[in-house]
Order: sequence, then structure tokens, then C-alpha cells
Amino acid sequence: MTQTTVALAKGYAAHSATTPLVPWDFERRAPRPDDVSIEILYCGVCHSDLHFARDDWGMASYPVVPGHEIVGRVTAVGDDVSQYQVGDLVGVGCMVDSCRQCKACNEGLENYCAEGFVMTYGSPDRHDGTLTQGGYADKVVVSERFVVRMPNGIDLKSAAPILCAGITTYSPLKHYGVKPGDKVGIIGMGGLGHMGVKLAKALGAEVTLFTRSESKKAEARKQGADHVVISTSEDEMGAITETFDFMLDTAPVQHDINPYLNALKPDGTHILVGLLEPLDPAVFGANLVSRRRVLAGSLIGGMPETQEVLDFCAENGITCDVEMIDIDQINEAWDRMQKGDVKYRFVIDMASIKES
Amino acid sequence: MTQTTVALAKGYAAHSATTPLVPWDFERRAPRPDDVSIEILYCGVCHSDLHFARDDWGMASYPVVPGHEIVGRVTAVGDDVSQYQVGDLVGVGCMVDSCRQCKACNEGLENYCAEGFVMTYGSPDRHDGTLTQGGYADKVVVSERFVVRMPNGIDLKSAAPILCAGITTYSPLKHYGVKPGDKVGIIGMGGLGHMGVKLAKALGAEVTLFTRSESKKAEARKQGADHVVISTSEDEMGAITETFDFMLDTAPVQHDINPYLNALKPDGTHILVGLLEPLDPAVFGANLVSRRRVLAGSLIGGMPETQEVLDFCAENGITCDVEMIDIDQINEAWDRMQKGDVKYRFVIDMASIKES
Repeated sequence: MTQTTVALAKGYAAHSATTPLVPWDFERRAPRPDDVSIEILYCGVCHSDLHFARDDWGMASYPVVPGHEIVGRVTAVGDDVSQYQVGDLVGVGCMVDSCRQCKACNEGLENYCAEGFVMTYGSPDRHDGTLTQGGYADKVVVSERFVVRMPNGIDLKSAAPILCAGITTYSPLKHYGVKPGDKVGIIGMGGLGHMGVKLAKALGAEVTLFTRSESKKAEARKQGADHVVISTSEDEMGAITETFDFMLDTAPVQHDINPYLNALKPDGTHILVGLLEPLDPAVFGANLVSRRRVLAGSLIGGMPETQEVLDFCAENGITCDVEMIDIDQINEAWDRMQKGDVKYRFVIDMASIKES
Repeated sequence: MTQTTVALAKGYAAHSATTPLVPWDFERRAPRPDDVSIEILYCGVCHSDLHFARDDWGMASYPVVPGHEIVGRVTAVGDDVSQYQVGDLVGVGCMVDSCRQCKACNEGLENYCAEGFVMTYGSPDRHDGTLTQGGYADKVVVSERFVVRMPNGIDLKSAAPILCAGITTYSPLKHYGVKPGDKVGIIGMGGLGHMGVKLAKALGAEVTLFTRSESKKAEARKQGADHVVISTSEDEMGAITETFDFMLDTAPVQHDINPYLNALKPDGTHILVGLLEPLDPAVFGANLVSRRRVLAGSLIGGMPETQEVLDFCAENGITCDVEMIDIDQINEAWDRMQKGDVKYRFVIDMASIKES
């Protein structure tokens, strides 16, 4: 089935860095031959949505409809689409396009595309130059290559955040070869951190959650952490010197990574998935040199791996802990997210936009 | 042949952080069953010798006889020594002992020993607690495990620095799998840097030397560098964005590594072998995260790999560029080394100590 006309979409948009999200009607592009048209069922609420819309990163464009943890149902496919049919349940994550011909793209690492990937919202489309708009909306049109299939039986609501929080934590754990018996530390227990705990456990690791807050201990164990370390305790940090194979650092704010480096064994790896700009306090080179340790970074994941993490989560019964909201609660949800008052991801039930 | 008594050694020692090296007679321990007694023929002069003796690292002990690039001839072996015989030409590098039973030691990575390796000078001996003394001397006694064999035909004088400068650059190039066709940048062209150029070339890499000084261009090409980039030139640095697989950072002073990180391809690795304490200017996490780049550290190398690099150098005709000195020129040599006025390593002809 082909749908060739521009479609009117209903969304919630920020019109400036300082104004709340408000309802906004906008056009989705006329589908191209390789496009999949999707009715959005659910969309996760990522901290990046807020950072972008409030121009914390100095790269905002307005109006912007945020949202890059999209789950929906296919309503139309272009003539060249081969993998999806009308009615299929699909997902869209942080990317909707890339150059598709560089080394990274050819390796399925579109997230590291030499020309930069096209973000799901706020990026110029590579073909017509219009700004992309995200998933806080009732529909979206995305090139087949950047669509993934929702595995049979997965809970669609709680699977939505796998498309960002899940792949962001899964990709480095896989890339660096986390395996049964490895000792993995997860720093921070927000949307990414709690997924990191679940995924590292499912990969067979012995998982320690690092948190500043004593109050998160019980919760961390509920999520599956084998151990919890209070990162502000010198005693607790001192007791774990040189005992970890990996640290997955999901903390969204600047912090001293030196104590975590010293908690790594020789050849241990500290993986940054957030932007702590710059690393302050400064890194001491000796903490790397003296033990051949590695400080690494990782950014979401490529499209094949995004499918892989969805399938992995379905097979292992892993979902994100979510709190469902209606679209008209989004501004309140952002306020609560900024305070850390969510376990662990808000997900918008997009049925609510039809009624709004 | 067994030699069981304490031997009197002639050396040059620093007696404080501010006084020059002076002749000093001291005792070498009575050899243990696994010990090799060595008449020192040559000893390289490493910048670390000066840092340690002047207490730049706050870990000095006095008197100290520096020197950890030792080449000599075996004069006696303990009853348990199986690999060496009197008359063998051997080398001793930065380590003379370790716990010998931790995971790292069992993997031949004594340099990452869980209990810390025993430095060739300035460390307490694990058995009798006396302070080790280095190679600015006529003889040394070292446990067999920490002795390497000088390959047949290698030039002993110019091979001495392979025991520190050579292994320090070879080990990370091998560990990270540098292979033919890889683009490798070498930052700095001192004792380590010029060995890095030669070793990376011998491993088949396309090598670029980074230097602040236009005057080093011709010299870098003479050493085998395929390209030279002036690191202070924004144009030259801008032109190489995302083109390197590896950077081997031998610069001995604090510098901004962010421009070098940006010169790495996705998955590229920046390897620190010096201590830039701390990394200032600070590292921007995005330079790692956005391209899955790696910031790594590496410290000398283990004993099996120290033998390997000597053999590799012999097979590939690689030696260090050295300037020979007599022992009584050591203070002048240190002054010149501090000014960077040496191409690229001073080596002491220890025959001179017998005459001194």
C-alpha cells in the first residue's frame, strides 16, 4: 500500500527554550518509496528531549516535537519497502537517516555515520532540508532502514524506552564483550542505569549499582543488582579497589571518575554514555597508565543492534520500568523528570492525543 | 657457577633531590638461587631517572643509583637459574621483581602486578627490604625472571634503550593490534617517540609524527615517518579530522588531547604512555562518546613482551639512536636531556666506570 500525500500530524511542540510544550499541528512529509508510515502508539520521554527543547546543548530549532522512543503500527509502506507491511508493530529510535554509504553505515553503525546521523527530531532531512520532528505526535514517516520490528509478545508500552535507554546501555556492554562472571558496575540509576543493571545481569555479569543515595539500595536490589555501593562513602569505594572489569557510567552530571577508574582491574574499561562536559574533576593519566585501563565512550547503537537489543529483551523478559502518562501531562512529567522523580521512564500513551 | 657473597659495586648516585650524581660504592646483595649476576656494559639514560632522583614524583629514596636500561654480561648464576649461563649477553629493564603469583604476573604482565612491581631502583626488595639500585653502576644482581636475552647480532649500545623506551611503545602498539595499513600518529619525538615511529613502521602502519616544532620535520622523515603534522597549526590539525586509527602519545608534558581525539576515526584509540597529571585541559567526553573512541593507558610491558620487542628489533634492524657518554659526563647529560638536547637517548659506556 502506498500513501503519497503529505499527512497532517497532531503533536506537542516547544516553540522556544523557555515555553512549555503545547499542542501543534504540523505536516509529515509525503512518503518516499522506502518510507514506512507509522501510527504512534507510545513514546518514551527521554531526558535528552528536555535538554534539546530547552537548548541546553545550543543546537535547538523551533518549533520542535521531541520524542525518540517511538512504538507504533505501520499504516502504509512505500513501493520499495520490503521488510514491513501494514499492521506491523514497529519502533523508531534516535535516528531516522544517515549517509548510508560510509564505512560506519556499511557496518550497521549508522550512529557513527561519517556525515552524522539525522536525529529523529531537530535535524535537517537529507533530502528536502525540512526539520525532522519526533514522537510526541500521532504519526511519523521514517525510512525503512531506520525502523525496527517489535518482537512478538513484548509489552509495547514498557519496550518503548529500549529504543534509546536500552540500546545505549546494551551496545557498549556487547561491544566490550561483557560475559558471564564479569564484574560490572553501573553508575547511576535513572532510565539508563536501571536498564544497564537488567541488561548486564541478563548477560551473566555480577552487577554492582553505584549510587549517591542510601535510599536507592533496596530499589537497586529489586532491579537485580547483586551489590550496591554508596559512591560518596570513602570506605565503600576503598573496599572495591581493582575489583571491576567494567564500569558503565550513566550519571548525567559531572562527577569525578578517578575513584571509579581505580575500582577497575588491570585492563578494566570505564564506559561513558553521557556527556560530562568537560570531565571535571580532571582525569589522572596514571589511573589509566598504571593498570592499562581504558576510558571509552559509546553513543546509542546502530540499527542492527537496535533490533538485537529488542529481541534480547523479549527473550530475556526485560522491559523498562515505566509510568504511563497522557500527552497533556507532558510538561508536568518533564518537571518531575528533572527532579529525578520517576521510576524510571515516563511513556506517553498516544491514544490520548486523539482525545486532546 | 655460584657466587654467594655480597659484592662491592661502583656506581653513581644522587644523595638528595638537589645534588648532582657522584661516585658511590655500595653493596650488591649476595645472589639467591634464582639470581643472575651481571657485569654492566651499557646503561641508557631515561628521563625517569632524573624525575625520580630529583623527587619530581615524591617517591624518591636516597642514595639512589638510577638506570633501568641495562645491558651486560652474565658473570655468575644461582643454582636454580636455568635460562642463562656465564658469558651470556643479557638485559634488565624497569622491573626486577613482582609478586609472581597474581593474575597479571601469571599472564606475564608483571608490570601490572597486583602488589606493584619492584622497580630496578628505589624500591624495597621483596625479600630483604633493602632498596634496589639501578644501572649507573658496574654490576647488578637480578632474579632470572626479570632478565632478558640480548638477541644475537644486535648492537648492544643502541639496544639498551629498547628495555624502556622500546618496550613502552611496542607494548601498546601490539596490545591494540596495530597492523599493516593502520594509520598511526606518534605524538612527540623524544626517546619514546622516535622508537614509536620505528616500531609502528615495522608493524606496517602508515605513520604520522606530531610535533610542535617545524625544525623536527626533516628529522621525523629520516626516522621513517610518512607524514609530519605541526600540532600547533590549526590548519594542519583540522585537515586530519577523523583519519587516524591510533595515537601513541609520548609527549612528556601536559597538553590538550582533545584535538588528537578528534583526529581519530570512530573506534580509534589514543594511548597515553606518560603521566600528564592531571589531563589538563580537560577531556571532553563527547570526543569519546560521539565516535566510540578510546582513551587508553599503557605502562612499559611485561617480561615476555620485553624479550619479544628485543627479538622484533633485532629481526627488523631497529635500534635506538643514541649518543654515547662516559659515566663522568652523566650530570651534563642530564642537563642536556632536560633541555631536549639529545637525539634520542644518552647511553653510558660502563667501561668508563672502571677508569673513574
